[in-house]
Amino acid sequence: MSLALKSDYAKQFLRENDTLGLIPQIEAAHKTIQNKKDDMSAFLGWADLPFNYDKEEFARIKAAAKKIQSDTDVLIVIGIGGSYLGARAAIEFLKGPMYNEISDGFPKVYFSGNNISGSALNDILKVCENKRVSLNIISKSGTTTEPAIAFRIFRKYLVERYGEAEASKRIYCTTDKARGTLKELADQNGWESFVVPDNVGGRYSVLTAVGLLPIAAAGLDIDALMKGASAAAKDYDVLDVEANPCYKYAALRNAFYRKGKSVELFVSYEPRFVMLGEWFKQLFGESEGKDNKGLFPAAVTFSTDLHSMGQFIQDGTRIMFETALTVNSVDNDVTVEYDDNNGDGLNFLAGKTLSYVNHKAFEGTVLAHADGGTPTLNITIDKCDEENLGRLFYFFEKACAISGYVLGVNPFDQPGVEAYKKNMFALLGKPGYEESKAELEKRLNK
Amino acid sequence: MSLALKSDYAKQFLRENDTLGLIPQIEAAHKTIQNKKDDMSAFLGWADLPFNYDKEEFARIKAAAKKIQSDTDVLIVIGIGGSYLGARAAIEFLKGPMYNEISDGFPKVYFSGNNISGSALNDILKVCENKRVSLNIISKSGTTTEPAIAFRIFRKYLVERYGEAEASKRIYCTTDKARGTLKELADQNGWESFVVPDNVGGRYSVLTAVGLLPIAAAGLDIDALMKGASAAAKDYDVLDVEANPCYKYAALRNAFYRKGKSVELFVSYEPRFVMLGEWFKQLFGESEGKDNKGLFPAAVTFSTDLHSMGQFIQDGTRIMFETALTVNSVDNDVTVEYDDNNGDGLNFLAGKTLSYVNHKAFEGTVLAHADGGTPTLNITIDKCDEENLGRLFYFFEKACAISGYVLGVNPFDQPGVEAYKKNMFALLGKPGYEESKAELEKRLNK
Repeated sequence: MSLALKSDYAKQFLRENDTLGLIPQIEAAHKTIQNKKDDMSAFLGWADLPFNYDKEEFARIKAAAKKIQSDTDVLIVIGIGGSYLGARAAIEFLKGPMYNEISDGFPKVYFSGNNISGSALNDILKVCENKRVSLNIISKSGTTTEPAIAFRIFRKYLVERYGEAEASKRIYCTTDKARGTLKELADQNGWESFVVPDNVGGRYSVLTAVGLLPIAAAGLDIDALMKGASAAAKDYDVLDVEANPCYKYAALRNAFYRKGKSVELFVSYEPRFVMLGEWFKQLFGESEGKDNKGLFPAAVTFSTDLHSMGQFIQDGTRIMFETALTVNSVDNDVTVEYDDNNGDGLNFLAGKTLSYVNHKAFEGTVLAHADGGTPTLNITIDKCDEENLGRLFYFFEKACAISGYVLGVNPFDQPGVEAYKKNMFALLGKPGYEESKAELEKRLNK
Repeated sequence: MSLALKSDYAKQFLRENDTLGLIPQIEAAHKTIQNKKDDMSAFLGWADLPFNYDKEEFARIKAAAKKIQSDTDVLIVIGIGGSYLGARAAIEFLKGPMYNEISDGFPKVYFSGNNISGSALNDILKVCENKRVSLNIISKSGTTTEPAIAFRIFRKYLVERYGEAEASKRIYCTTDKARGTLKELADQNGWESFVVPDNVGGRYSVLTAVGLLPIAAAGLDIDALMKGASAAAKDYDVLDVEANPCYKYAALRNAFYRKGKSVELFVSYEPRFVMLGEWFKQLFGESEGKDNKGLFPAAVTFSTDLHSMGQFIQDGTRIMFETALTVNSVDNDVTVEYDDNNGDGLNFLAGKTLSYVNHKAFEGTVLAHADGGTPTLNITIDKCDEENLGRLFYFFEKACAISGYVLGVNPFDQPGVEAYKKNMFALLGKPGYEESKAELEKRLNK
């Protein structure tokens, strides 16, 4: 297991002083994390999580996953934002985006409660027909609208199918350890509960029960995941910007931001990385996009999107740099075979694997984009397994924390997320929000 | 069927002169399209396509779709960029993103050949097991690497399963009318062929056989699709920027660009619109992202992404505006039921539909984002059916053409897409590209 950061394809866009000037700020950020780890309000619980986690709960997660595997065909995971993106990113990264359509003996895992769409909800109800179903509801408070609505509906569905007693054995709650609407319901009904720690924010929660239960239920090795994260936590605690790829990445993306880049493109060459890109977008967008600052995070999958966004990246407004994630060794490969007729002219690729061709596409692309004025940072991992993924999660989490401090924001709050909710609650007539309703409606009708 | 553009939620960010100054340019763009329609090299074939299409071929498409429905469980559509995005966008818009997991009696449709991933290809091969399979290969030349590789593999698979004669009856080609590698193969093997017209570019091709065959095979009404597009072609040919929402949209997005916005966010509130967002990104990104110009197109699905990108949109770098697509009437809705216990506190929503709640989320969001400094343009359609989708496709196509001319680019070329391909071919040792290989390899190893 290893991870490397290569800035060769960005070299022509960088000067020595770009990162030199950032070193004192990286050092300060490093110290902030070290000094505040035990301050619960600092939301730094993720930093030591790979070794400092609840071992008893971890064992319960594995036991619950085993039970789910034994009595469940379809696991519905209800959560939004950080309460689903990490688990979904992990499952797709490890099993591919079509994991629910290819039977591997483990339960299918569907993610619900992350939108307000009736048709999306009905579609998931349809796949439950004639299947054994369990629920994992993930919400710190239990009052977030999207998952709360989906949970009300799916809970009723379970009770109607199985009766109250059996339904209660099929509901798994991941919520606050002591307080809140969902915790109260869980205690009243005897649902098995897991904890969203107080000092770990949603977008940093994939290595808590939030991510671990669905990942384990899908048949994946959460011990290896934690092992990779644990090695990363050690490796990326070294205060040396040149030697520590995590700190170097944080420095380089800030350097590009200060040079006027406003978009960071998360690039991969495998469809199984699409949801990791979504996780990345939340992590960095929500951590840094505040106080009118931050790199706008976007994600593309190549070579797919070289045929859609490629033109813009090559030659459009020069506002972006790329962070490309590549893999050294790909499983499940395909070899191009020789064809006597060669009607398609592809025999020059005969005997080559798709991963080889894909890598040449990557190399051709970074050079072309550099020529067009778009730099690429390249993060490479060994292969798509749990250990490498654990390392990757931690790498980005820590890089994001360091990067946010360097940018001069609090990387662990998200005050802007409340604005639409307050308006929505008022417009929906939620008790306690009556006051602003009339004013908002006036603004809408003007 | 109707479409409305509302700029109320952007009003506070616009002055009268913003669009006034653009009117002469819109007029010039309008005339360019009218005058050059018959010039084959101008790639304006899309403009009259909804009424000026090959009726005989259209009937053959419907017949082929019927045959596929009668003898096929899984249709593999091989194509990249404009050769798959339109069809996939249409199928998901009309049937929902889980269309392959919910049986409706029509063939499942999988899209392949749009990446260079062995595991993605193997996953699709797996879903073909014990299913009756047909292929639709879509490529103007037949030499584009990604679809050519996938086609070589799937063609061999079909021949092994069915023998040469039956396999040939299960291969449908959409390609050049007379020339090219794929057309030659089709003629040699007697595959049924459909035409990618010479004067319609890939990203404008959804209403040709490129999009129509897969859409029809999935059981959708392509007559209604063309009817909607046809009405749109008439409605949006009116040279009046205030009265023509298509021209108004083109003007407003240029106005925002000139005010310094660099990102346009395509926003929807339904997961079934995700691939339409990808189609939108190619259409605008590839048409306008050139000569170091253009709005960077990104897409988000709310309320999902209000819990990931919401913070940035509310309060991060002020570089974007939103184009939100909403629907007046949603089918397949769900009503929140009253719960005696009300443990989740949701009874204030009892009796309300999810589409109602979703609309309040939209209203709350546009007001919140406006307060944060992000304007929203709102495009509304009646419902998610074929007619409205046909109208929507044409609306965006024409708006993009007009907008590109106003921006001062050729909206119909994509010179930047070749750069990575040339490098990739050289690095792969493709005959004819030997010269630059050594130089590129030297650059990679430095």
